[in-house]
Amino acid sequence: MTAHNTNWDNEHFFHPWEGMETLGQNDRAYIEGGEGIYVRNDRGERLMDGPAGMWCVQVGYGREEIADAMADQARQLAYFSPFNNTSSISTRFAHEIARRAPGDLNNVFFTTGGSTAVDTAIRFVHFRNNLMGRPEKKIIISRQKAYHGSTYLAASVSGKERDRLWLDKADHLSHFLPNVNPLHRSDGQSIDAFLDEKIADLENAILTLGADKVAAFIAEPILASGGVIVPPKGYHKRCLEVCHRHDVLYISDEVVTAFGRLGHWFASEDVFGIQPDIITCAKGMTSGYVPMGAAIVSDRLIADLTGMGATFSNGYTYSGHPVSAAAGLKSMEIIERDGLLEHVQALSPLFQERLSSLQDIDIVVDTRGMGFMGCVECSADGSKDALLDQDYAIGALIDEECQKRGLLVRPLINMCVTSPPLIMSADQINQMFDILETGIKTAADRRGA
Amino acid sequence: MTAHNTNWDNEHFFHPWEGMETLGQNDRAYIEGGEGIYVRNDRGERLMDGPAGMWCVQVGYGREEIADAMADQARQLAYFSPFNNTSSISTRFAHEIARRAPGDLNNVFFTTGGSTAVDTAIRFVHFRNNLMGRPEKKIIISRQKAYHGSTYLAASVSGKERDRLWLDKADHLSHFLPNVNPLHRSDGQSIDAFLDEKIADLENAILTLGADKVAAFIAEPILASGGVIVPPKGYHKRCLEVCHRHDVLYISDEVVTAFGRLGHWFASEDVFGIQPDIITCAKGMTSGYVPMGAAIVSDRLIADLTGMGATFSNGYTYSGHPVSAAAGLKSMEIIERDGLLEHVQALSPLFQERLSSLQDIDIVVDTRGMGFMGCVECSADGSKDALLDQDYAIGALIDEECQKRGLLVRPLINMCVTSPPLIMSADQINQMFDILETGIKTAADRRGA
Ligand SMILES: Cc1ncc(COP(=O)(O)O)c(C=O)c1O
Ligand SMILES: Cc1ncc(COP(=O)(O)O)c(C=O)c1O
Repeated sequence: MTAHNTNWDNEHFFHPWEGMETLGQNDRAYIEGGEGIYVRNDRGERLMDGPAGMWCVQVGYGREEIADAMADQARQLAYFSPFNNTSSISTRFAHEIARRAPGDLNNVFFTTGGSTAVDTAIRFVHFRNNLMGRPEKKIIISRQKAYHGSTYLAASVSGKERDRLWLDKADHLSHFLPNVNPLHRSDGQSIDAFLDEKIADLENAILTLGADKVAAFIAEPILASGGVIVPPKGYHKRCLEVCHRHDVLYISDEVVTAFGRLGHWFASEDVFGIQPDIITCAKGMTSGYVPMGAAIVSDRLIADLTGMGATFSNGYTYSGHPVSAAAGLKSMEIIERDGLLEHVQALSPLFQERLSSLQDIDIVVDTRGMGFMGCVECSADGSKDALLDQDYAIGALIDEECQKRGLLVRPLINMCVTSPPLIMSADQINQMFDILETGIKTAADRRGA
Repeated sequence: MTAHNTNWDNEHFFHPWEGMETLGQNDRAYIEGGEGIYVRNDRGERLMDGPAGMWCVQVGYGREEIADAMADQARQLAYFSPFNNTSSISTRFAHEIARRAPGDLNNVFFTTGGSTAVDTAIRFVHFRNNLMGRPEKKIIISRQKAYHGSTYLAASVSGKERDRLWLDKADHLSHFLPNVNPLHRSDGQSIDAFLDEKIADLENAILTLGADKVAAFIAEPILASGGVIVPPKGYHKRCLEVCHRHDVLYISDEVVTAFGRLGHWFASEDVFGIQPDIITCAKGMTSGYVPMGAAIVSDRLIADLTGMGATFSNGYTYSGHPVSAAAGLKSMEIIERDGLLEHVQALSPLFQERLSSLQDIDIVVDTRGMGFMGCVECSADGSKDALLDQDYAIGALIDEECQKRGLLVRPLINMCVTSPPLIMSADQINQMFDILETGIKTAADRRGA
């Protein structure tokens, strides 16, 4: 364990989503080690990692093979400029990704993470419309509760309300559709009617804004950070139809859902039956071992762009980084060799069954999920209305109770999210949900609910 | 050497600044290995790496120690979420950076590269002005030929004209000052008068736009990708005075100049005598071995932001990545242990002398540089006016002739840029400039200039 000065975190590490009031006075937990599905904190406690880092450590911690692949690549060639040159490792990773991506999504634009993947995807869509002589077609339709990242442009299409305070967004470039969470449908509304309403929301938005103004629709197949929101069955397919009817592109943000989280390399086609125009990915792409992201663009979109001598002047020093590619290829190899896609497919029913049985607990208002993604939503009085209060305390309490019992969960206001490493066994899934169950019940007792 | 299918690069790797006409038909050189100051291509040729990748491989290629540090960290803990937790390795790197950064620049906001560092810096400046009740104070003043990155926001403050075609920018958020290259001063104008003019450009812009509208000035200490433009002596100090007189923040973009390129950890204070409000860095931070960037924010700026319960809702999954931090710390250790800052300081006079003696060649219009950064600007007829033609051919010819002789240069239109690994010895510097000299002369002969 590396020795550390506990003040350095407060004095010098300015964290994401840092609160200005608490800056310099935090007491963040130090995570110092990891092995398989477990992480170890600086008190030597071993915790099951419910969120897999942050939806990313697909193959688990401490993989010698990935460490070796990264080191070998760093020894052989730690960097090349993707602006002027190429290298076989990155070229091969592009090929392996394209091979697994749906349809003609053959062009892998590497970036440094999810935000830059989304930023690139949107810049490309705008670039394309400029070249096609329709510079007014620029609005990106997104949804409430969506999270697409944190560059100015990616944040502009993110609809998590509490993240929109104080920070500027390019509001003229975005439009948000209402929440697609069936939990919030009106009393007595059927799922089918709710689905019709959501599809109408999209089509009406396009018609109201004008199809000549709307460039693309961006959507996480399952809204992850927004609270694992699973739209009604058939939603994606009908959205794609609406989009293509109005010449609006469909960007599927698979930063969370790709690379096995739902039991497939990409979820768009294999799970939801759609071939989007662009897929963005990151996180599981390297199992989080090293930063990388990508926007995967279809051949069709590119075919429209010749004849004008245009250059897509976008890209990063670290686009296609060879060490990231080496980690990504090895993670892909492990997923394949160890049959992790099939493993997730096989254990998803258990995972989802254990998840939904948490509904029996009083304060649990909703559970939802798919594959190895789950969310438990709680409210002090067990009613849907209380959710409006955004009860941060209950999430923190559950977190505390679970941690005592050896499970790290990711509290999201009044929700607990779980998206463990894909290697979790049936026993471990049961163990995780046992802890979660006890944790929630104990937290409820402490709250006197 | 990894075997590769030569079509994969064309079929699947969508590169930065890809030309739409040539996409799928490129013949990019494969870089497959590196050792010290040399890279090796797929034909087994060893080339001296003039650009150090792309201004980034400070300690050279093939450093076992960095490969080992990355692998050790990946084995121990490959990822933690910086949103919820911390880890001693990243905390320590934040501390080591803050220790070396000027004055009270103590808050290290980690990102995934230079673009996200700049994006974050600007978002922070906007956030701060929103909190301080002056939401109209948002314009960022930049300069022609500046390059600050490729997210939508970073690109919006980049002034390289040829990169602005076809891609959208947030034009209402930016303002560009004229070129600060003394080469382009009017006939008979003294350097002092030119400097006065450049300072007046900044102050007039602030006054014309309105100090209540201008949030910050962003400047590379030396404009790197724009062609290693060195502003007149005293420029930065006077710009800072102008900025602070009008309550405009100074963002020093040290993505290229930090971590030793000019013989110091950061150039802002040690070379140019200024303490900016925010410094952005990336590239040399990890010697390019793995993606990482940072925006380093001064205590002063943060002190203004308490009392409103605000959260700076910005950040990345890979902010403060432990493997990146491990590489960065090791690179820093090597720079220190091997005395590379002192080495660059000691050899810069030789480097710059050899560079400026290239002026004797007919087609060379200008040479300029500082530390281990240099640029040779050529024109077919050796006149300044011809530069307007943006003669791509001559750069490509020089590149070809140098490569034949074992030197990789980075052609930038009619310019050749050199920014080698910091470990280059005096002999190697001489060798590099010998080749460059012969390469330029031969290219000139071939052009019949
Ligand atoms: C769906 C989705 N898109 C984009 C992002 C942004 O990715 P990053 O944090 O790597 O920039 C995230 C991150 O959580 C995400 O969940
Ligand atoms: C001064 C400067 N700022 C920012 C950037 C953008 O960095 P990145 O390509 O890592 O996003 C660069 C890249 O060349 C740069 O030179």
